[in-house]
Amino acid sequence: MAIYIYKGYGNMLKAEYLQRGPVPQDVIEAVAFEDPELQEGQVLLELLASPINPSDVLTLTGEYGLLPPLPAVGGNEGVAKVVRHGPNVSGPEIGQIVLLPVGSGTWATHMVANAQGLVPLPNNVDPVQLSMITINPPTAYLLLSEFVDLQEGDWVIQNAANSGVGSYLTTLAKLRGLKVINVVRRESLIDPMLAAGADVVLVDGEVNGEGLGKRVAAATGGAEIKLGIDAVGGMATARMGEALSEGATLVNYGALSGEPCVIAPGMIIFKDITVRGFWLAKWFGAATPERQHEVFGTITKLVAEGKLSAPIHGTYPLSEIKEAVRVAAAGGRDGKVIVTGESWTA
Amino acid sequence: MAIYIYKGYGNMLKAEYLQRGPVPQDVIEAVAFEDPELQEGQVLLELLASPINPSDVLTLTGEYGLLPPLPAVGGNEGVAKVVRHGPNVSGPEIGQIVLLPVGSGTWATHMVANAQGLVPLPNNVDPVQLSMITINPPTAYLLLSEFVDLQEGDWVIQNAANSGVGSYLTTLAKLRGLKVINVVRRESLIDPMLAAGADVVLVDGEVNGEGLGKRVAAATGGAEIKLGIDAVGGMATARMGEALSEGATLVNYGALSGEPCVIAPGMIIFKDITVRGFWLAKWFGAATPERQHEVFGTITKLVAEGKLSAPIHGTYPLSEIKEAVRVAAAGGRDGKVIVTGESWTA
Repeated sequence: MAIYIYKGYGNMLKAEYLQRGPVPQDVIEAVAFEDPELQEGQVLLELLASPINPSDVLTLTGEYGLLPPLPAVGGNEGVAKVVRHGPNVSGPEIGQIVLLPVGSGTWATHMVANAQGLVPLPNNVDPVQLSMITINPPTAYLLLSEFVDLQEGDWVIQNAANSGVGSYLTTLAKLRGLKVINVVRRESLIDPMLAAGADVVLVDGEVNGEGLGKRVAAATGGAEIKLGIDAVGGMATARMGEALSEGATLVNYGALSGEPCVIAPGMIIFKDITVRGFWLAKWFGAATPERQHEVFGTITKLVAEGKLSAPIHGTYPLSEIKEAVRVAAAGGRDGKVIVTGESWTA
Repeated sequence: MAIYIYKGYGNMLKAEYLQRGPVPQDVIEAVAFEDPELQEGQVLLELLASPINPSDVLTLTGEYGLLPPLPAVGGNEGVAKVVRHGPNVSGPEIGQIVLLPVGSGTWATHMVANAQGLVPLPNNVDPVQLSMITINPPTAYLLLSEFVDLQEGDWVIQNAANSGVGSYLTTLAKLRGLKVINVVRRESLIDPMLAAGADVVLVDGEVNGEGLGKRVAAATGGAEIKLGIDAVGGMATARMGEALSEGATLVNYGALSGEPCVIAPGMIIFKDITVRGFWLAKWFGAATPERQHEVFGTITKLVAEGKLSAPIHGTYPLSEIKEAVRVAAAGGRDGKVIVTGESWTA
């Protein structure tokens, strides 16, 4: 667990982009801003940690489904500490860790927020892990609960299994007693994933002339697989289709291959597979407040108990945002890239 | 309407295939068989008409989802006339037109069937139109009723609109008060389709630099389109996705392009489109007898009333089965290829 030591205010920086473009690190830049004056009811927050998610990269390149007006500050989730109160603020207290509102432009060393409505988080939990709870864990949770009614002992299959969502999904599935087939692109990932709780880990594509469908059937003893979770697209979608059982549902939530999903008609016609998509932003707009509290309550508790965490590739101070985005966009990592505030060091 | 004149028994022929192969007319052959002896309760039927459907061609090439054991007789639907009774048969009477049981190998001049269970059809209706009621009209009917709850005035979009299913679908949609966007590959089809009741007919792909989605929006005034029906696959699926509204359902039931469906993740993730498949054989296995009677009762009545019909490309006697299959498999037709018995002439 990272220990954060307060160093006092440093430079106030925000990672801003004035335009979108194919090379995401070229359009984003850390720029200084003035110490803001707080209005009635406002607090000054100092960033602890904010992850770089695939959707953040796609927002910079212009490929995402929802693009903020320009200029914009990058980042969509994170945690911060209350460092100053404006007039008439009774809480949260100075020093309290809070969750940043989703989509608020979280790659900034400091932010102004209305004190009311801030969600306090436990101060004794790794803020890097807490910084990722708004997007990937609910995505994994909802992929396992919104499409197919799964029972203990049921199998699910996912690709890009070493992604942020993928590793949360493995853990959440295990906690529910589900069995997971993790599909990855590198053989070196197999052993760490088995250690992390995956029941079966297979490399995608053909191995010794055998397709994914055959190898999945061999590994599971021909078990029924009612849910497939695809973050890759392209031919990976078609290969997952081969592994699924008749009447199954395949849910796509990403296109890490950069290619459209390929779906053989035989898969949807003869095998009656339903293909769906999942987008958390849409769920936020449609789910009742009760359901949202239920989902986030469960996730926060699991993170606080240390039962749910994601591997970290590296942390970068906000001044190194270009390098952080470059690394996040390049792929081939084994964990998440995290942006941290300037005044806090791990 | 074709008039059928009885010429007495000719040669008894069946269109048999001993193996499957890429050129369907090479594997099928008309071979003679002996006049069969009828057992207790059996009747001898003489073929009036049996269509060549895309699924029949795919069965010959081995690409279909359900392949009969070899050797096999081609054809899956049709109508025939009762020409001889075996011992202890009280009906249907000699001369009665009956529906052939689905999947029974209908490309034969004569067939033996159990009298019990044969479905009599009106003798005063064009048997060529009746010969097609088992597969394409219920497919069209069910595509419009099993996936989206459509109300009068709602729009649907389909491609391969000049196919057998496509033309039935246009008629059935019109009878329900639905509006249809027909997507075709040849401009020459536009006028006949508008005459046949399509509300909008568009050529697929880009026209003057405008994609299908834009042109559909222009033609419908931006109307909501909740159901897309795709028989083509490949990029045609992706193009149809552009034309559909948020939350719509795209149903694929064929792959006339010979290519897998291409589905941009943005379409299923951001637009929340559900992709399904439809296979009539599966529906037959799952639907209640009541529902089946309801569907076929409606269709038979509409055909008998002359309200539901399909265009005919040409009729071929069974002895010319190779040429008939070649023409059916070649595409670019404007109607169905029909196989007729030897002893009946149009």
